[in-house]
Amino acid sequence: MSKKDILIVGAGPAGMSAALNAQNDGWNFELIESKEEGWFPRVSVDSHYTVDNYLGFSNVSGTELIKKFQEHLRNNEIIPSYEKVRRINRINNVFLVETDKDTYETKSLILANGTKQKRLNVPDIEQFLGKSVFYYCVPDGEQFRDKKVFVVGGRNTGAVTALYLNKLGCDVEVIEKDPQLNAKSKYASKILSAGIPYRTETEIVTLNGDKNLESITLRSPLGLENVVAEGIFVCIGLEPNNDLAKHMEVDLDKWGYVVVDSHMATNIPGAYAAGDITGNLKQIVVAAAQGSIATYNIGKYLREKCKE
Amino acid sequence: MSKKDILIVGAGPAGMSAALNAQNDGWNFELIESKEEGWFPRVSVDSHYTVDNYLGFSNVSGTELIKKFQEHLRNNEIIPSYEKVRRINRINNVFLVETDKDTYETKSLILANGTKQKRLNVPDIEQFLGKSVFYYCVPDGEQFRDKKVFVVGGRNTGAVTALYLNKLGCDVEVIEKDPQLNAKSKYASKILSAGIPYRTETEIVTLNGDKNLESITLRSPLGLENVVAEGIFVCIGLEPNNDLAKHMEVDLDKWGYVVVDSHMATNIPGAYAAGDITGNLKQIVVAAAQGSIATYNIGKYLREKCKE
Repeated sequence: MSKKDILIVGAGPAGMSAALNAQNDGWNFELIESKEEGWFPRVSVDSHYTVDNYLGFSNVSGTELIKKFQEHLRNNEIIPSYEKVRRINRINNVFLVETDKDTYETKSLILANGTKQKRLNVPDIEQFLGKSVFYYCVPDGEQFRDKKVFVVGGRNTGAVTALYLNKLGCDVEVIEKDPQLNAKSKYASKILSAGIPYRTETEIVTLNGDKNLESITLRSPLGLENVVAEGIFVCIGLEPNNDLAKHMEVDLDKWGYVVVDSHMATNIPGAYAAGDITGNLKQIVVAAAQGSIATYNIGKYLREKCKE
Repeated sequence: MSKKDILIVGAGPAGMSAALNAQNDGWNFELIESKEEGWFPRVSVDSHYTVDNYLGFSNVSGTELIKKFQEHLRNNEIIPSYEKVRRINRINNVFLVETDKDTYETKSLILANGTKQKRLNVPDIEQFLGKSVFYYCVPDGEQFRDKKVFVVGGRNTGAVTALYLNKLGCDVEVIEKDPQLNAKSKYASKILSAGIPYRTETEIVTLNGDKNLESITLRSPLGLENVVAEGIFVCIGLEPNNDLAKHMEVDLDKWGYVVVDSHMATNIPGAYAAGDITGNLKQIVVAAAQGSIATYNIGKYLREKCKE
């Protein structure tokens, strides 16, 4: 059993920034990361997605940026611990946090679990996951060079993924259930100029194939159609990684995001949240700022608690 | 008369981040900066003050960080315009902004004016300002090498300023009106280990001298005392640069900071604020995040407005 002042769950930008502040302020803390899907460099900022709104780093790839962040942590002697939290219980004003490696007793915690890709609701999808169907496309795109693949979702992530697969040499097509692509105009116009075909008002109804995917059945206002498909990349939006929050009975909004006040405090005393899990503007700089704000206010909370 | 979608007033981290987002989103905007006291690299983050809580830049000087930020803006072809806003009036749903160089008509604006050092209330202080009395100490410290100087204020900025002057070779002493130094323990302990003397429960009542400062009269529980002093560095906290906000009748809190909602919107439609002027946690990453959030929500506001 390790005792902590602050346990930070999730080592994305929010958790990393929270940890820097905790270190600067001299708290006894641990930064833990499950490295599951949703881990920062994979989904949120893939290596083929450049970031240009984090002040100080001009037009940088997600991979370069995460390396800079990790280097900053290393310089400050912050080493994330890679373990998965199984359960969090609040007993006598402290949190008992069970992971797959350890149990922590902590006076406060920050939920910085981020988001994951929303799941596609198609029968038997599980049998193709990781082989023909993916919720992210790096580094899995390479194997589909010259093959017919579909990107499901015509918003920004779908458009960027389609452009990436097109550049890799895949025969890619976009499927969107709405009547139009909803990507920003700068991405939508690239889709057009790259000549990437897209179908609107279209959904996948079945995935067909034995071991590997061979074709998909699409439904559109024109009816059903069976088309060859070897790979599917699902980009239909994000949803919060809120399993731990739910179990702790943290208040969630109607989309499942954690409700926080301006101090990043949840409804549970001592439990704070930061980053994309709070449903705020999904920018790295916003997540990092929320991590700072959470740690600052936990500092106040812990000093008050010590007086009791 | 220049017409804009967004006018950003102040090119500190909040204004710079707002401008990056405005550029990325294709808005017609202008970033203007008065370069007066309170300009980002001078007061908020002096060159002798290292920053270690902006994720991605490890233990960097304020000067280095601002250079990175300015480089990012240059790479994105954002050139701040150096002019001083004299007055902002809202007429027929647009803002008329008069500066010392131009007049803008803008659909929306972001107040990112930051803060300035609080003024010291001592008779005849004006005659010594910029010669013997300073509200910041870079690059003015150098001229006081081997001379007797006082730092007014024993909080973090006062402590860091005193340590810097001590390192430069000034004979520095700290004056604090409270019964103790209120700096973080890491700064207070450095003051002690550097052997920098300090007086608590002490205030300056007069500044004495003809052209240059020669001595000051101090009041403490022991009575009045006249001591030799050639330079005074005032670090008694920050106050918002809210003159424009006041004139626009933007709601302020009891300390004079601009009141914003979670979208960074003020009570005036189309007027947003970001950064230290909002009274939030004074970290660069927080200011930058607020700039992003302000531009994002202005985008929504402008699209709604276009529909009218």
